[in-house]
Amino acid sequence: MDNDRLKKLNLLTESDRLQKQLTFLMEIDKMKNVMRQTVLTDKSRQETDAEHSWHFAMMAMLLYEYTDTDKVDLNRVIRMALVHDLIEIYAGDTFAYDIEGNKDKEDREKKAADRLFSILPLDQGEEIRTLWEEFDAMETQDAIYASAIDRLQPLVINFITEGHTWKRGVTYDQVYERNRVVKEASPSLWKLINELLDKSVELGYLKK
Amino acid sequence: MDNDRLKKLNLLTESDRLQKQLTFLMEIDKMKNVMRQTVLTDKSRQETDAEHSWHFAMMAMLLYEYTDTDKVDLNRVIRMALVHDLIEIYAGDTFAYDIEGNKDKEDREKKAADRLFSILPLDQGEEIRTLWEEFDAMETQDAIYASAIDRLQPLVINFITEGHTWKRGVTYDQVYERNRVVKEASPSLWKLINELLDKSVELGYLKK
Repeated sequence: MDNDRLKKLNLLTESDRLQKQLTFLMEIDKMKNVMRQTVLTDKSRQETDAEHSWHFAMMAMLLYEYTDTDKVDLNRVIRMALVHDLIEIYAGDTFAYDIEGNKDKEDREKKAADRLFSILPLDQGEEIRTLWEEFDAMETQDAIYASAIDRLQPLVINFITEGHTWKRGVTYDQVYERNRVVKEASPSLWKLINELLDKSVELGYLKK
Repeated sequence: MDNDRLKKLNLLTESDRLQKQLTFLMEIDKMKNVMRQTVLTDKSRQETDAEHSWHFAMMAMLLYEYTDTDKVDLNRVIRMALVHDLIEIYAGDTFAYDIEGNKDKEDREKKAADRLFSILPLDQGEEIRTLWEEFDAMETQDAIYASAIDRLQPLVINFITEGHTWKRGVTYDQVYERNRVVKEASPSLWKLINELLDKSVELGYLKK
């Protein structure tokens, strides 16, 4: 926290624990200032991390039937959606296809996590960090489905907005590669991704 | 849907069910265009409904220990947070202290719900509508805790921003009245609300 505005919370006589929780909850207000590459479907502006996290959670909820519901716990996936980009408050949003920016991404994000999650009481900081790390590792069934939706959300928006982000020089192969995790999460959504990509090439939104 | 942009989804050969889900999921992108009265903590602009819904879900998650965890199902509360403002896409955000605007709020919101939820497959439309109606009725334990957090979120932001929204002529009595539901949801958060309000009066953010 680099600001004075949250110091006001120290005026309260609440328990140390509640003070920490409120401070964290107001610090993450900054998610409304982290801009992503993806635009709104009306192209009026870029979306914020807070908006993306909400949209991701909604998509995870409504497309759940397309993954293995015996193996994927939707409640955990929704929580992953809510917290998966928090560290970008300090680490910034790294464009998925920015090779240079992705080189030190891991290091930047680890430092951001140390700084951000330590604002919370120890148990809660650990809990959220563990959830974020699980998401990031993309190994568990929950994390695989979550990652698939995290990728599908900007992809559908790119299709609606005539490849708005892709026009920065992203190719079919790059998008295909990045979305490969969807194959593991859901055959139906993988079929959808393929159709979206083929149509995007056909309509000139994406170069093959 | 008043727009052509989502018609692109009809180009896909996906099942009718998936088409409907995708259309709904892109229609609710408009939550990023519904502006609330509450500003960001840095006062740079108003927050959007999508951002508020995300913030509300995060607060519900991290302050859960202060309600009766035997009676309140956090997973349902988080889903309520995600969907509770969806109808504002068509009904608009009604400022809590706008007496005139609140007169026809119920009717406007019912019409908006009919229109919005019918985009989804019947079962999912019903599911989300039922969740929204439960939230709105503020009768179940889940809805009471959810409503408490929905009110606490802008209140803490108002405290941080020196009563930014309250300066439009809102009084202590009005805020106290509106936040009464917190008393039922959580004695600890009710104590916090009272302290926030008293300090706000003391610091001149809110008129008694």
